[in-house]
Amino acid sequence: MKTETTIQGLNAALASARLARKTIGFVPTMGNLHEGHLSLVREAKKLCDVVVVSIFVNPIQFGPNEDYDNYPRTLEADSHLLADVGCDLLFAPTVQQMYGDHVRKTSVVVSGITDLLCGQSRPGHFDGVATVVTKLFNIVQPNTAFFGQKDWQQLEVIRAMTRDLNLPLDIVGVPIARAEDGLALSSRNGYLTEQQRQQAPVIYQSLLAAKQSLQSGEDLSVVLQNIRDTLQQAGFEIDYVEAYTPHLQSVQQFNQDIMLFVAAKLGQPRLIDNLLVKYIPN
Amino acid sequence: MKTETTIQGLNAALASARLARKTIGFVPTMGNLHEGHLSLVREAKKLCDVVVVSIFVNPIQFGPNEDYDNYPRTLEADSHLLADVGCDLLFAPTVQQMYGDHVRKTSVVVSGITDLLCGQSRPGHFDGVATVVTKLFNIVQPNTAFFGQKDWQQLEVIRAMTRDLNLPLDIVGVPIARAEDGLALSSRNGYLTEQQRQQAPVIYQSLLAAKQSLQSGEDLSVVLQNIRDTLQQAGFEIDYVEAYTPHLQSVQQFNQDIMLFVAAKLGQPRLIDNLLVKYIPN
Repeated sequence: MKTETTIQGLNAALASARLARKTIGFVPTMGNLHEGHLSLVREAKKLCDVVVVSIFVNPIQFGPNEDYDNYPRTLEADSHLLADVGCDLLFAPTVQQMYGDHVRKTSVVVSGITDLLCGQSRPGHFDGVATVVTKLFNIVQPNTAFFGQKDWQQLEVIRAMTRDLNLPLDIVGVPIARAEDGLALSSRNGYLTEQQRQQAPVIYQSLLAAKQSLQSGEDLSVVLQNIRDTLQQAGFEIDYVEAYTPHLQSVQQFNQDIMLFVAAKLGQPRLIDNLLVKYIPN
Repeated sequence: MKTETTIQGLNAALASARLARKTIGFVPTMGNLHEGHLSLVREAKKLCDVVVVSIFVNPIQFGPNEDYDNYPRTLEADSHLLADVGCDLLFAPTVQQMYGDHVRKTSVVVSGITDLLCGQSRPGHFDGVATVVTKLFNIVQPNTAFFGQKDWQQLEVIRAMTRDLNLPLDIVGVPIARAEDGLALSSRNGYLTEQQRQQAPVIYQSLLAAKQSLQSGEDLSVVLQNIRDTLQQAGFEIDYVEAYTPHLQSVQQFNQDIMLFVAAKLGQPRLIDNLLVKYIPN
Protein backbone atom coordinates (compact mmCIF):
# COMPACT_ATOMS: atom_id res chain seq x y z
CA MET A 1 0.00 0.00 0.00
CA LYS A 2 1.24 3.45 -0.94
CA THR A 3 0.73 6.42 1.34
CA GLU A 4 0.51 9.94 -0.07
CA THR A 5 0.21 13.13 1.93
CA THR A 6 -0.05 15.65 -0.93
CA ILE A 7 -2.55 16.14 -3.75
CA GLN A 8 0.32 16.11 -6.23
CA GLY A 9 1.59 12.81 -4.83
CA LEU A 10 -1.89 11.32 -4.96
CA ASN A 11 -2.31 12.36 -8.59
CA ALA A 12 1.06 10.86 -9.51
CA ALA A 13 0.18 7.63 -7.69
CA LEU A 14 -3.18 7.38 -9.49
CA ALA A 15 -1.92 8.41 -12.93
CA SER A 16 -1.32 4.92 -14.27
CA ALA A 17 -4.63 3.60 -12.91
CA ARG A 18 -6.44 6.50 -14.57
CA LEU A 19 -4.58 5.99 -17.82
CA ALA A 20 -5.53 2.30 -17.80
CA ARG A 21 -9.16 3.36 -17.05
CA LYS A 22 -9.24 1.26 -13.91
CA THR A 23 -12.23 1.98 -11.68
CA ILE A 24 -11.36 3.84 -8.50
CA GLY A 25 -13.23 3.20 -5.25
CA PHE A 26 -12.93 5.79 -2.51
CA VAL A 27 -13.53 5.56 1.24
CA PRO A 28 -13.22 8.95 2.99
CA THR A 29 -12.58 8.61 6.75
CA MET A 30 -11.32 10.57 9.73
CA GLY A 31 -9.08 7.65 10.72
CA ASN A 32 -9.03 5.77 14.04
CA LEU A 33 -10.27 2.92 11.93
CA HIS A 34 -12.43 0.07 13.17
CA GLU A 35 -14.24 -2.84 11.60
CA GLY A 36 -16.92 -0.47 10.27
CA HIS A 37 -14.40 1.37 8.13
CA LEU A 38 -12.78 -1.89 7.05
CA SER A 39 -16.14 -3.19 5.85
CA LEU A 40 -16.32 -0.11 3.58
CA VAL A 41 -12.88 -0.93 2.20
CA ARG A 42 -13.87 -4.56 1.58
CA GLU A 43 -17.00 -3.43 -0.24
CA ALA A 44 -14.91 -1.03 -2.32
CA LYS A 45 -12.50 -3.82 -3.21
CA LYS A 46 -15.41 -5.94 -4.43
CA LEU A 47 -16.69 -3.24 -6.77
CA CYS A 48 -13.57 -1.37 -7.92
CA ASP A 49 -10.10 -2.05 -9.35
CA VAL A 50 -8.22 0.38 -7.14
CA VAL A 51 -9.20 1.41 -3.61
CA VAL A 52 -8.22 4.78 -2.12
CA VAL A 53 -8.87 5.54 1.56
CA SER A 54 -8.43 9.06 2.90
CA ILE A 55 -7.72 9.86 6.54
CA PHE A 56 -8.35 13.50 7.32
CA VAL A 57 -9.74 14.93 10.54
CA ASN A 58 -11.61 17.80 8.96
CA PRO A 59 -11.57 20.89 11.20
CA ILE A 60 -14.50 22.63 9.51
CA GLN A 61 -17.03 19.94 10.43
CA PHE A 62 -16.37 20.28 14.17
CA GLY A 63 -18.15 22.90 16.26
CA PRO A 64 -16.16 25.19 18.56
CA ASN A 65 -16.98 23.07 21.64
CA GLU A 66 -16.55 19.70 19.96
CA ASP A 67 -13.69 17.21 20.08
CA TYR A 68 -11.56 18.30 17.08
CA ASP A 69 -8.35 18.69 19.10
CA ASN A 70 -8.87 15.44 20.97
CA TYR A 71 -10.24 13.38 18.09
CA PRO A 72 -8.16 10.17 18.12
CA ARG A 73 -5.34 10.26 15.55
CA THR A 74 -3.82 6.81 15.08
CA LEU A 75 -2.27 6.95 11.62
CA GLU A 76 0.27 4.18 12.09
CA ALA A 77 -2.23 1.62 13.40
CA ASP A 78 -4.73 2.70 10.72
CA SER A 79 -2.11 2.23 8.06
CA HIS A 80 -1.46 -1.37 9.12
CA LEU A 81 -5.19 -2.17 9.18
CA LEU A 82 -5.64 -0.72 5.69
CA ALA A 83 -2.67 -2.60 4.26
CA ASP A 84 -4.01 -5.86 5.74
CA VAL A 85 -7.43 -5.41 4.18
CA GLY A 86 -5.95 -4.67 0.73
CA CYS A 87 -6.28 -0.90 0.42
CA ASP A 88 -4.13 0.27 -2.50
CA LEU A 89 -3.54 3.89 -1.59
CA LEU A 90 -3.83 5.85 1.63
CA PHE A 91 -4.28 9.60 1.23
CA ALA A 92 -3.46 11.36 4.50
CA PRO A 93 -3.19 15.10 3.81
CA THR A 94 -2.45 17.85 6.32
CA VAL A 95 -4.92 20.64 7.02
CA GLN A 96 -2.55 22.95 5.16
CA GLN A 97 -2.64 20.65 2.12
CA MET A 98 -6.44 20.55 2.11
CA TYR A 99 -7.19 24.20 2.88
CA GLY A 100 -3.98 26.03 1.94
CA ASP A 101 -2.95 29.37 3.40
CA HIS A 102 -5.68 31.49 1.87
CA VAL A 103 -9.01 32.26 3.47
CA ARG A 104 -11.58 29.72 2.29
CA LYS A 105 -14.50 31.50 0.65
CA THR A 106 -16.53 28.56 -0.68
CA SER A 107 -18.93 26.20 1.08
CA VAL A 108 -21.17 23.47 -0.24
CA VAL A 109 -24.45 23.90 1.61
CA VAL A 110 -27.17 21.25 1.69
CA SER A 111 -30.42 22.61 3.12
CA GLY A 112 -33.61 21.04 4.42
CA ILE A 113 -32.43 17.60 5.46
CA THR A 114 -29.58 19.20 7.43
CA ASP A 115 -31.93 21.15 9.71
CA LEU A 116 -32.92 18.08 11.72
CA LEU A 117 -31.27 15.32 13.79
CA CYS A 118 -27.48 15.88 13.97
CA GLY A 119 -27.86 19.08 11.95
CA GLN A 120 -29.86 20.62 14.78
CA SER A 121 -27.41 19.65 17.51
CA ARG A 122 -24.29 20.34 15.43
CA PRO A 123 -24.84 23.63 13.51
CA GLY A 124 -22.51 23.97 10.52
CA HIS A 125 -21.46 20.32 10.77
CA PHE A 126 -22.98 19.20 7.47
CA ASP A 127 -21.70 22.26 5.58
CA GLY A 128 -18.24 21.18 6.72
CA VAL A 129 -18.89 17.59 5.67
CA ALA A 130 -20.37 18.50 2.27
CA THR A 131 -17.52 20.91 1.54
CA VAL A 132 -14.69 18.53 2.43
CA VAL A 133 -16.31 15.59 0.66
CA THR A 134 -16.73 17.68 -2.50
CA LYS A 135 -13.07 18.62 -2.27
CA LEU A 136 -12.00 15.00 -1.73
CA PHE A 137 -14.19 13.82 -4.62
CA ASN A 138 -12.56 16.41 -6.90
CA ILE A 139 -9.08 15.41 -5.72
CA VAL A 140 -9.49 11.63 -5.92
CA GLN A 141 -12.01 11.59 -8.80
CA PRO A 142 -13.37 8.15 -7.89
CA ASN A 143 -15.96 6.16 -9.81
CA THR A 144 -17.65 5.08 -6.58
CA ALA A 145 -17.48 6.35 -3.00
CA PHE A 146 -18.47 4.35 0.07
CA PHE A 147 -20.09 5.65 3.26
CA GLY A 148 -21.36 3.91 6.39
CA GLN A 149 -25.08 3.79 7.11
CA LYS A 150 -24.37 4.58 10.77
CA ASP A 151 -24.12 8.22 9.67
CA TRP A 152 -27.38 7.85 7.76
CA GLN A 153 -28.10 11.56 7.62
CA GLN A 154 -24.58 12.19 6.32
CA LEU A 155 -25.17 9.55 3.64
CA GLU A 156 -28.41 11.28 2.60
CA VAL A 157 -26.61 14.65 2.52
CA ILE A 158 -23.85 13.19 0.31
CA ARG A 159 -26.42 11.58 -1.98
CA ALA A 160 -28.36 14.85 -2.35
CA MET A 161 -25.16 16.80 -2.97
CA THR A 162 -23.86 14.29 -5.52
CA ARG A 163 -27.14 14.41 -7.43
CA ASP A 164 -27.67 18.17 -7.17
CA LEU A 165 -24.11 19.05 -8.25
CA ASN A 166 -23.92 16.31 -10.93
CA LEU A 167 -20.81 14.88 -9.30
CA PRO A 168 -19.68 12.16 -11.71
CA LEU A 169 -19.63 9.18 -9.33
CA ASP A 170 -21.83 6.65 -7.57
CA ILE A 171 -22.50 6.61 -3.83
CA VAL A 172 -22.76 3.29 -1.99
CA GLY A 173 -24.06 3.03 1.57
CA VAL A 174 -22.72 0.13 3.63
CA PRO A 175 -24.66 -1.40 6.59
CA ILE A 176 -23.65 -0.58 10.16
CA ALA A 177 -20.92 -2.79 11.63
CA ARG A 178 -21.76 -3.75 15.20
CA ALA A 179 -19.92 -5.27 18.13
CA GLU A 180 -21.18 -8.69 19.23
CA ASP A 181 -23.36 -7.02 21.85
CA GLY A 182 -24.95 -4.83 19.16
CA LEU A 183 -23.16 -1.53 19.80
CA ALA A 184 -22.62 0.33 16.52
CA LEU A 185 -18.89 0.64 15.94
CA SER A 186 -17.59 4.20 16.22
CA SER A 187 -14.27 5.91 16.81
CA ARG A 188 -15.96 7.70 19.69
CA ASN A 189 -16.56 4.36 21.48
CA GLY A 190 -12.91 4.61 22.50
CA TYR A 191 -13.86 7.48 24.82
CA LEU A 192 -16.16 5.20 26.86
CA THR A 193 -15.14 3.96 30.32
CA GLU A 194 -15.44 0.21 30.84
CA GLN A 195 -18.70 0.71 32.71
CA GLN A 196 -20.12 3.01 30.02
CA ARG A 197 -19.09 0.50 27.38
CA GLN A 198 -21.27 -2.10 29.12
CA GLN A 199 -24.23 0.28 29.14
CA ALA A 200 -23.77 1.44 25.54
CA PRO A 201 -25.54 -1.49 23.79
CA VAL A 202 -28.80 -0.33 25.42
CA ILE A 203 -29.16 2.03 22.43
CA TYR A 204 -29.36 -0.79 19.91
CA GLN A 205 -31.45 -2.96 22.24
CA SER A 206 -33.98 -0.15 22.62
CA LEU A 207 -34.11 0.26 18.83
CA LEU A 208 -34.73 -3.47 18.35
CA ALA A 209 -37.47 -3.42 20.99
CA ALA A 210 -39.01 -0.39 19.30
CA LYS A 211 -39.03 -2.13 15.95
CA GLN A 212 -40.85 -5.11 17.45
CA SER A 213 -43.41 -2.85 19.18
CA LEU A 214 -44.07 -0.93 15.97
CA GLN A 215 -44.53 -4.07 13.94
CA SER A 216 -46.90 -5.37 16.66
CA GLY A 217 -49.08 -2.30 16.16
CA GLU A 218 -47.88 0.04 18.92
CA ASP A 219 -48.25 3.76 18.26
CA LEU A 220 -45.13 5.55 16.95
CA SER A 221 -45.14 8.33 19.55
CA VAL A 222 -45.46 5.77 22.36
CA VAL A 223 -42.59 3.74 20.92
CA LEU A 224 -40.32 6.79 20.67
CA GLN A 225 -41.16 7.72 24.25
CA ASN A 226 -40.30 4.18 25.36
CA ILE A 227 -36.84 4.51 23.78
CA ARG A 228 -36.34 7.81 25.56
CA ASP A 229 -37.41 6.32 28.91
CA THR A 230 -35.14 3.30 28.48
CA LEU A 231 -32.13 5.43 27.61
CA GLN A 232 -32.69 7.90 30.42
CA GLN A 233 -33.04 5.09 32.94
CA ALA A 234 -29.76 3.64 31.66
CA GLY A 235 -28.00 6.95 32.34
CA PHE A 236 -27.92 8.44 28.83
CA GLU A 237 -28.37 12.14 28.21
CA ILE A 238 -30.61 12.18 25.14
CA ASP A 239 -29.84 14.45 22.21
CA TYR A 240 -32.66 13.13 20.00
CA VAL A 241 -34.85 10.06 19.55
CA GLU A 242 -36.84 10.52 16.37
CA ALA A 243 -38.39 8.82 13.36
CA TYR A 244 -38.18 9.92 9.73
CA THR A 245 -38.61 8.28 6.35
CA PRO A 246 -35.37 6.87 4.91
CA HIS A 247 -35.06 10.10 2.87
CA LEU A 248 -35.56 12.15 6.04
CA GLN A 249 -39.10 13.34 5.48
CA SER A 250 -41.36 13.78 8.53
CA VAL A 251 -43.56 10.91 9.66
CA GLN A 252 -46.41 11.09 12.14
CA GLN A 253 -47.27 7.41 12.28
CA PHE A 254 -45.95 4.04 11.23
CA ASN A 255 -47.69 3.65 7.86
CA GLN A 256 -44.61 3.31 5.64
CA ASP A 257 -40.98 2.23 6.02
CA ILE A 258 -39.37 4.43 8.65
CA MET A 259 -36.01 4.93 10.26
CA LEU A 260 -35.50 5.32 13.98
CA PHE A 261 -32.66 7.66 14.91
CA VAL A 262 -30.93 8.02 18.27
CA ALA A 263 -28.18 10.33 19.47
CA ALA A 264 -27.32 10.28 23.16
CA LYS A 265 -24.41 11.04 25.42
CA LEU A 266 -23.01 8.57 27.89
CA GLY A 267 -20.71 10.77 29.94
CA GLN A 268 -18.64 12.76 27.44
CA PRO A 269 -18.99 10.68 24.28
CA ARG A 270 -21.98 11.22 22.03
CA LEU A 271 -23.17 8.01 20.36
CA ILE A 272 -25.52 7.68 17.40
CA ASP A 273 -27.37 4.75 15.91
CA ASN A 274 -30.32 4.08 13.62
CA LEU A 275 -32.55 1.26 12.49
CA LEU A 276 -34.80 0.74 9.49
CA VAL A 277 -38.29 -0.53 10.35
CA LYS A 278 -40.04 -2.05 7.36
CA TYR A 279 -43.76 -1.44 7.08
CA ILE A 280 -45.62 -4.63 6.25
CA PRO A 281 -49.29 -3.87 5.53
CA ASN A 282 -51.81 -6.44 6.79
CA MET B 1 -20.90 21.07 -34.88
CA LYS B 2 -22.96 18.67 -32.82
CA THR B 3 -25.76 19.89 -30.56
CA GLU B 4 -26.78 17.94 -27.48
CA THR B 5 -29.65 18.77 -25.15
CA THR B 6 -29.19 16.00 -22.56
CA ILE B 7 -26.37 15.09 -20.20
CA GLN B 8 -26.43 11.56 -21.56
CA GLY B 9 -26.11 12.85 -25.12
CA LEU B 10 -23.26 15.13 -24.13
CA ASN B 11 -21.41 12.26 -22.47
CA ALA B 12 -21.86 10.07 -25.53
CA ALA B 13 -20.64 12.88 -27.80
CA LEU B 14 -17.54 13.44 -25.64
CA ALA B 15 -16.73 9.76 -25.06
CA SER B 16 -14.27 9.37 -27.91
CA ALA B 17 -12.51 12.67 -27.12
CA ARG B 18 -12.15 11.59 -23.49
CA LEU B 19 -10.89 8.16 -24.49
CA ALA B 20 -8.30 9.76 -26.76
CA ARG B 21 -7.34 12.09 -23.85
CA LYS B 22 -8.02 15.15 -25.95
CA THR B 23 -8.13 18.37 -23.95
CA ILE B 24 -11.60 19.82 -23.55
CA GLY B 25 -12.18 23.58 -23.45
CA PHE B 26 -15.49 24.81 -22.08
CA VAL B 27 -17.32 28.12 -22.52
CA PRO B 28 -20.48 28.36 -20.37
CA THR B 29 -22.92 31.00 -21.65
CA MET B 30 -26.55 32.05 -21.40
CA GLY B 31 -26.74 32.37 -25.18
CA ASN B 32 -27.71 35.43 -27.24
CA LEU B 33 -24.13 35.31 -28.32
CA HIS B 34 -22.07 38.28 -29.41
CA GLU B 35 -18.46 38.91 -30.31
CA GLY B 36 -17.50 38.73 -26.62
CA HIS B 37 -18.65 35.11 -26.39
CA LEU B 38 -17.04 34.28 -29.71
CA SER B 39 -13.70 35.62 -28.47
CA LEU B 40 -13.96 33.10 -25.60
CA VAL B 41 -14.56 30.31 -28.11
CA ARG B 42 -11.59 31.41 -30.20
CA GLU B 43 -9.37 31.46 -27.12
CA ALA B 44 -10.63 27.97 -26.18
CA LYS B 45 -9.84 26.72 -29.69
CA LYS B 46 -6.29 28.01 -29.34
CA LEU B 47 -5.68 26.16 -26.08
CA CYS B 48 -7.78 22.98 -26.34
CA ASP B 49 -8.44 20.11 -28.74
CA VAL B 50 -12.22 20.08 -28.38
CA VAL B 51 -14.41 23.07 -27.56
CA VAL B 52 -17.77 22.73 -25.81
CA VAL B 53 -20.09 25.73 -25.43
CA SER B 54 -23.14 25.54 -23.19
CA ILE B 55 -26.20 27.73 -23.62
CA PHE B 56 -28.39 27.68 -20.53
CA VAL B 57 -30.40 30.56 -19.13
CA ASN B 58 -30.03 29.59 -15.48
CA PRO B 59 -33.17 30.45 -13.50
CA ILE B 60 -31.51 30.31 -10.08
CA GLN B 61 -29.13 33.20 -10.78
CA PHE B 62 -31.97 35.64 -11.55
CA GLY B 63 -33.73 37.54 -8.77
CA PRO B 64 -37.55 37.54 -8.59
CA ASN B 65 -37.76 40.99 -10.24
CA GLU B 66 -35.08 40.39 -12.83
CA ASP B 67 -35.31 39.57 -16.53
CA TYR B 68 -35.28 35.73 -16.49
CA ASP B 69 -38.51 35.38 -18.47
CA ASN B 70 -37.51 38.03 -20.99
CA TYR B 71 -33.84 37.14 -21.27
CA PRO B 72 -33.17 36.89 -25.03
CA ARG B 73 -33.23 33.27 -26.24
CA THR B 74 -31.82 33.01 -29.76
CA LEU B 75 -30.65 29.42 -30.04
CA GLU B 76 -30.78 29.12 -33.80
CA ALA B 77 -28.74 32.27 -34.48
CA ASP B 78 -26.33 31.30 -31.68
CA SER B 79 -25.90 27.88 -33.19
CA HIS B 80 -24.85 29.35 -36.57
CA LEU B 81 -22.38 31.72 -34.93
CA LEU B 82 -20.81 28.86 -32.95
CA ALA B 83 -20.53 26.61 -35.97
CA ASP B 84 -18.84 29.42 -37.92
CA VAL B 85 -16.24 30.01 -35.22
CA GLY B 86 -15.39 26.31 -34.98
CA CYS B 87 -17.16 25.19 -31.80
CA ASP B 88 -17.23 21.37 -31.73
CA LEU B 89 -20.18 20.74 -29.44
CA LEU B 90 -23.09 22.86 -28.28
CA PHE B 91 -24.73 21.76 -25.03
CA ALA B 92 -28.18 23.33 -24.72
CA PRO B 93 -30.01 21.60 -21.87
CA THR B 94 -33.52 22.37 -20.62
CA VAL B 95 -34.17 23.52 -17.06
CA GLN B 96 -35.64 20.09 -16.41
CA GLN B 97 -32.44 18.42 -17.63
CA MET B 98 -30.27 20.58 -15.37
CA TYR B 99 -32.40 20.59 -12.22
CA GLY B 100 -34.65 17.54 -12.59
CA ASP B 101 -38.01 17.15 -10.90
CA HIS B 102 -36.76 16.90 -7.33
CA VAL B 103 -36.34 19.83 -4.96
CA ARG B 104 -32.75 21.06 -5.16
CA LYS B 105 -31.14 20.96 -1.71
CA THR B 106 -27.55 21.90 -2.55
CA SER B 107 -25.95 25.28 -3.20
CA VAL B 108 -22.36 26.30 -3.74
CA VAL B 109 -21.91 29.46 -1.71
CA VAL B 110 -18.94 31.81 -2.12
CA SER B 111 -18.79 34.36 0.69
CA GLY B 112 -16.92 37.62 1.19
CA ILE B 113 -16.25 38.71 -2.37
CA THR B 114 -19.94 38.17 -3.19
CA ASP B 115 -21.14 40.74 -0.62
CA LEU B 116 -20.07 43.71 -2.71
CA LEU B 117 -20.68 45.16 -6.22
CA CYS B 118 -23.20 42.99 -8.13
CA GLY B 119 -23.57 40.73 -5.07
CA GLN B 120 -25.06 43.63 -3.14
CA SER B 121 -27.53 44.65 -5.83
CA ARG B 122 -28.38 41.07 -6.86
CA PRO B 123 -28.77 38.98 -3.66
CA GLY B 124 -28.42 35.24 -4.33
CA HIS B 125 -27.10 35.87 -7.84
CA PHE B 126 -23.62 34.49 -7.22
CA ASP B 127 -24.91 31.44 -5.32
CA GLY B 128 -26.90 30.67 -8.46
CA VAL B 129 -23.86 31.22 -10.67
CA ALA B 130 -21.49 29.17 -8.49
CA THR B 131 -24.00 26.33 -8.25
CA VAL B 132 -24.76 26.07 -11.96
CA VAL B 133 -21.11 26.45 -12.96
CA THR B 134 -20.13 23.65 -10.55
CA LYS B 135 -22.85 21.50 -12.10
CA LEU B 136 -21.71 22.31 -15.65
CA PHE B 137 -18.06 21.64 -14.75
CA ASN B 138 -19.06 18.23 -13.35
CA ILE B 139 -21.13 17.45 -16.44
CA VAL B 140 -18.64 18.58 -19.10
CA GLN B 141 -15.46 17.79 -17.11
CA PRO B 142 -13.32 20.23 -19.08
CA ASN B 143 -9.58 20.76 -18.73
CA THR B 144 -9.99 24.51 -19.08
CA ALA B 145 -12.99 26.84 -18.80
CA PHE B 146 -13.18 30.34 -20.25
CA PHE B 147 -14.96 33.37 -18.79
CA GLY B 148 -15.16 36.99 -19.87
CA GLN B 149 -13.49 39.69 -17.82
CA LYS B 150 -16.55 41.91 -18.24
CA ASP B 151 -18.08 39.90 -15.40
CA TRP B 152 -14.90 40.38 -13.38
CA GLN B 153 -16.53 39.63 -10.04
CA GLN B 154 -18.04 36.45 -11.48
CA LEU B 155 -14.58 35.45 -12.73
CA GLU B 156 -13.15 36.00 -9.23
CA VAL B 157 -16.02 33.97 -7.72
CA ILE B 158 -15.35 31.11 -10.16
CA ARG B 159 -11.62 31.24 -9.46
CA ALA B 160 -12.19 31.13 -5.68
CA MET B 161 -14.69 28.29 -6.01
CA THR B 162 -12.43 26.29 -8.33
CA ARG B 163 -9.51 26.64 -5.92
CA ASP B 164 -11.52 26.08 -2.72
CA LEU B 165 -13.33 22.99 -4.04
CA ASN B 166 -10.24 21.58 -5.82
CA LEU B 167 -12.15 21.47 -9.09
CA PRO B 168 -9.77 19.72 -11.49
CA LEU B 169 -9.56 22.36 -14.23
CA ASP B 170 -7.97 25.68 -15.15
CA ILE B 171 -9.85 28.96 -15.40
CA VAL B 172 -8.94 31.46 -18.11
CA GLY B 173 -10.23 35.05 -18.11
CA VAL B 174 -10.59 36.69 -21.52
CA PRO B 175 -10.45 40.50 -22.01
CA ILE B 176 -13.64 42.47 -22.57
CA ALA B 177 -14.80 42.68 -26.19
CA ARG B 178 -15.97 46.20 -27.01
CA ALA B 179 -17.91 47.86 -29.79
CA GLU B 180 -15.93 50.38 -31.86
CA ASP B 181 -17.25 53.19 -29.68
CA GLY B 182 -15.99 51.38 -26.56
CA LEU B 183 -19.26 49.93 -25.20
CA ALA B 184 -18.60 46.57 -23.55
CA LEU B 185 -20.50 43.92 -25.50
CA SER B 186 -23.40 42.40 -23.57
CA SER B 187 -26.57 40.51 -24.38
CA ARG B 188 -28.40 43.20 -22.44
CA ASN B 189 -27.27 45.86 -24.97
CA GLY B 190 -30.05 44.50 -27.15
CA TYR B 191 -32.57 46.04 -24.74
CA LEU B 192 -31.24 49.57 -25.46
CA THR B 193 -33.21 52.02 -27.61
CA GLU B 194 -31.24 53.65 -30.40
CA GLN B 195 -30.86 56.80 -28.34
CA GLN B 196 -29.74 54.87 -25.24
CA ARG B 197 -27.28 52.95 -27.37
CA GLN B 198 -25.66 56.24 -28.34
CA GLN B 199 -25.36 57.28 -24.68
CA ALA B 200 -24.09 53.90 -23.46
CA PRO B 201 -20.38 54.36 -24.37
CA VAL B 202 -20.21 57.14 -21.75
CA ILE B 203 -19.54 54.37 -19.21
CA TYR B 204 -16.29 53.31 -20.86
CA GLN B 205 -15.33 56.91 -21.64
CA SER B 206 -15.76 57.85 -17.98
CA LEU B 207 -13.60 54.86 -16.96
CA LEU B 208 -10.85 55.87 -19.37
CA ALA B 209 -10.97 59.47 -18.10
CA ALA B 210 -10.81 58.18 -14.53
CA LYS B 211 -7.76 56.08 -15.33
CA GLN B 212 -5.98 59.10 -16.74
CA SER B 213 -6.90 61.26 -13.73
CA LEU B 214 -5.67 58.60 -11.30
CA GLN B 215 -2.39 58.17 -13.12
CA SER B 216 -2.01 61.96 -13.13
CA GLY B 217 -2.25 61.94 -9.33
CA GLU B 218 -5.92 62.78 -8.71
CA ASP B 219 -7.42 61.42 -5.50
CA LEU B 220 -9.37 58.15 -5.81
CA SER B 221 -12.53 59.39 -4.08
CA VAL B 222 -12.61 62.46 -6.34
CA VAL B 223 -12.16 60.31 -9.42
CA LEU B 224 -15.00 57.96 -8.40
CA GLN B 225 -17.26 60.96 -7.78
CA ASN B 226 -16.38 62.34 -11.22
CA ILE B 227 -17.51 59.07 -12.82
CA ARG B 228 -20.78 59.23 -10.87
CA ASP B 229 -21.37 62.84 -11.92
CA THR B 230 -20.63 62.09 -15.56
CA LEU B 231 -22.99 59.10 -15.62
CA GLN B 232 -25.79 60.92 -13.83
CA GLN B 233 -25.52 63.86 -16.21
CA ALA B 234 -25.74 61.41 -19.11
CA GLY B 235 -29.01 60.02 -17.75
CA PHE B 236 -27.78 56.84 -16.07
CA GLU B 237 -29.24 55.57 -12.83
CA ILE B 238 -26.15 54.44 -10.92
CA ASP B 239 -26.08 51.11 -9.16
CA TYR B 240 -22.44 51.36 -8.10
CA VAL B 241 -19.20 53.09 -9.06
CA GLU B 242 -16.42 51.63 -6.95
CA ALA B 243 -12.77 50.64 -6.81
CA TYR B 244 -11.29 47.40 -5.47
CA THR B 245 -8.07 45.47 -5.92
CA PRO B 246 -8.18 42.93 -8.76
CA HIS B 247 -8.96 40.26 -6.12
CA LEU B 248 -11.77 42.44 -4.74
CA GLN B 249 -10.15 43.66 -1.56
CA SER B 250 -11.00 47.17 -0.35
CA VAL B 251 -8.84 50.11 -1.40
CA GLN B 252 -8.87 53.60 0.06
CA GLN B 253 -6.40 55.21 -2.29
CA PHE B 254 -4.59 54.59 -5.52
CA ASN B 255 -1.34 53.07 -4.20
CA GLN B 256 -1.50 49.70 -5.98
CA ASP B 257 -3.12 48.25 -9.11
CA ILE B 258 -6.86 48.76 -8.83
CA MET B 259 -9.99 47.97 -10.78
CA LEU B 260 -12.76 50.48 -11.38
CA PHE B 261 -16.24 48.94 -11.47
CA VAL B 262 -19.43 50.46 -12.82
CA ALA B 263 -23.01 49.19 -12.90
CA ALA B 264 -25.70 51.57 -14.09
CA LYS B 265 -29.10 51.48 -15.64
CA LEU B 266 -29.98 53.28 -18.82
CA GLY B 267 -33.76 52.97 -18.87
CA GLN B 268 -34.51 49.32 -18.18
CA PRO B 269 -31.22 47.64 -19.06
CA ARG B 270 -28.50 47.43 -16.43
CA LEU B 271 -25.00 47.70 -17.92
CA ILE B 272 -21.70 46.82 -16.25
CA ASP B 273 -18.10 47.54 -17.12
CA ASN B 274 -14.70 47.61 -15.47
CA LEU B 275 -11.17 48.77 -16.08
CA LEU B 276 -7.81 47.87 -14.61
CA VAL B 277 -5.68 50.85 -13.61
CA LYS B 278 -2.03 49.95 -13.22
CA TYR B 279 -0.15 51.66 -10.41
CA ILE B 280 3.20 52.98 -11.60
CA PRO B 281 5.24 54.25 -8.65
CA ASN B 282 7.34 57.39 -9.31
